[in-house]
Amino acid sequence: MNFTHHQLETFTIAVLQKIGCPEADAKTAASVLLSADLRGVDSHGVARLSGYVRLWEAGRINPTPNVRVVHETPSTAVVDGDAGLGLVVAPFAMKVAIEKAKIAGTGWVSVKNSNHYGIAGVHAMQALQHDMIGISLTNASPLVSPTFSKERLLGTNPISVAIPAKDQPPFVLDMATTTAANGKLEILQRKKEQAPAGWIQDKDGKSTTDPLGVKDGGALLPLGGDREHGSQKGYGLGAVVDIFSAVLSGANYGPWVPPFVAFLEPHPNPVGEGLGHFFGAMRVDAFRPADEFKAHMDNWIGRFREATPIEGHEKVLIPGDPERELEAERRANGIPLLTAVVDDLRALGDKLGVDWE
Amino acid sequence: MNFTHHQLETFTIAVLQKIGCPEADAKTAASVLLSADLRGVDSHGVARLSGYVRLWEAGRINPTPNVRVVHETPSTAVVDGDAGLGLVVAPFAMKVAIEKAKIAGTGWVSVKNSNHYGIAGVHAMQALQHDMIGISLTNASPLVSPTFSKERLLGTNPISVAIPAKDQPPFVLDMATTTAANGKLEILQRKKEQAPAGWIQDKDGKSTTDPLGVKDGGALLPLGGDREHGSQKGYGLGAVVDIFSAVLSGANYGPWVPPFVAFLEPHPNPVGEGLGHFFGAMRVDAFRPADEFKAHMDNWIGRFREATPIEGHEKVLIPGDPERELEAERRANGIPLLTAVVDDLRALGDKLGVDWE
Repeated sequence: MNFTHHQLETFTIAVLQKIGCPEADAKTAASVLLSADLRGVDSHGVARLSGYVRLWEAGRINPTPNVRVVHETPSTAVVDGDAGLGLVVAPFAMKVAIEKAKIAGTGWVSVKNSNHYGIAGVHAMQALQHDMIGISLTNASPLVSPTFSKERLLGTNPISVAIPAKDQPPFVLDMATTTAANGKLEILQRKKEQAPAGWIQDKDGKSTTDPLGVKDGGALLPLGGDREHGSQKGYGLGAVVDIFSAVLSGANYGPWVPPFVAFLEPHPNPVGEGLGHFFGAMRVDAFRPADEFKAHMDNWIGRFREATPIEGHEKVLIPGDPERELEAERRANGIPLLTAVVDDLRALGDKLGVDWE
Repeated sequence: MNFTHHQLETFTIAVLQKIGCPEADAKTAASVLLSADLRGVDSHGVARLSGYVRLWEAGRINPTPNVRVVHETPSTAVVDGDAGLGLVVAPFAMKVAIEKAKIAGTGWVSVKNSNHYGIAGVHAMQALQHDMIGISLTNASPLVSPTFSKERLLGTNPISVAIPAKDQPPFVLDMATTTAANGKLEILQRKKEQAPAGWIQDKDGKSTTDPLGVKDGGALLPLGGDREHGSQKGYGLGAVVDIFSAVLSGANYGPWVPPFVAFLEPHPNPVGEGLGHFFGAMRVDAFRPADEFKAHMDNWIGRFREATPIEGHEKVLIPGDPERELEAERRANGIPLLTAVVDDLRALGDKLGVDWE
């Protein structure tokens, strides 16, 4: 079933207003949430809306937060999200980073006391319109085991870097620091298909292809998969994301990060407040004239796009290509939603008195 | 054969002075080079010394460079390395980043017109003594193919992040953005052993376990190995390193990066000057009081170190643990060198009139 971007956005705004979000915040949050559906990261879009509402019901989301800077230098700030929606806190913090960069050349903002912020890429991309490079990191509920460990101590902790170009579309890397994102596993679970080796381990730390392995006490594997293929690197990158997002800001880190699902209680002895994000903005002309930089980015992108492909593959992609193509397609033809998601949204609308159609 | 750190350092300093480096620069460069041998990254240590000398003979290294800041804002700078040794240019640039951070909270320096800078980690670690987080990136000779490509367009483009702690040793990530570093392949070549699948592809882009595959027109694979295991992420990270190091600064990028080996000519139509690096320094107290941050880092490190290991594995490691343990061992018992390396250094000493013993 396909739905227009407009219908889903209107519905999301109305739902968020029903739980007490001011209109401007509801619009910001809906825009962030829907960008995931448009860009094909379906696990982070409207499919999560009822999850956010359940967190609000559990008293873990503050719909009217006083989001504010609590510490700063010319190029840095710490933002306290006041337990607000990450979908609202993150755009605020990214804006602080951009404002810092306008004056100091770069801006770097670590955020505490927040919640899940949707897809990483949409926040990094805020920098592009200012001729800045944008960076967006966040920690998340622990689902990933460090190399050699049975325990789940890290989230899928994504890294996004958005870099402006001139005539070429921007370079937008948006990646989990795991072999496979959790959303891909959920698809295999629904289809009852096996996962490739190297994606997950079972509760004893042994490699498994059972897509239910993570739910049964196993874990997602860091990018690399195993030690022989560099999983200590994926683990190390996920760790850096965790430390920049939470140890710098005063949020919870590692196994203390509060779970997204409302039926799991947060850790009884937190080491910080909420979960954490980290944002960066670098003015391109803080390094060299923006036109010069962007012309060379066009050259970089053009050269990589024209790289000789391996037989059986059509072309070499630039980070951001697949998502941009999908967004164009979905803006034109609508966003497909699974029946289970539609039923869930319909029930949510009924409960809160928001019209679905 | 084991050699003391002191002997190798004295020899290196003398060799670099013979090619015209001022004493202070020779000492800086030797310290950087030897740190690779101490930390177990043997491919980036004294084994490379004769390679640097050959670059000097080819007129591609300036022994008395005028390394300088050519563009700056409160938190950024571009450094022109004036074709100097990366081993000298990089410490200069990292110092600029640290000085910027003292005033602006953070400092970010992109470098052009440089050469290979040794191991990434040693530069990032310069920040630790200032209670700063250090970041070090560099591009390198093209040996890596983007996902779906037969062409080699990226270097092993490493990422290093060094983070101070309190009583715990610092967290030091230092990783190539490939599945395996080139040095590991060289070891397999010498031992005539097969490489694991997922490390390299042959000239047609097919997976191979032949460790000579790269020399025969193949390529190292980005971290992840193949698309199913996330190689587009390793490719994306290597690309970000390339862009931050070279497109921001005005150095050569992608396939235009000059080769380290002197017998290969640089690209006839360069897109920039030399190769590029990127450095960052973030004052911890630009985010929260340093003592608080470092106490939480101790807690982070302690928790991960105590994670339940998988049966058959002794313990979970923190990034930097293996290198630190090796450094302690090698400072005590000396640095082992292969016979081929010793012969090469001895011949170098004979040629330049430097005593080896």
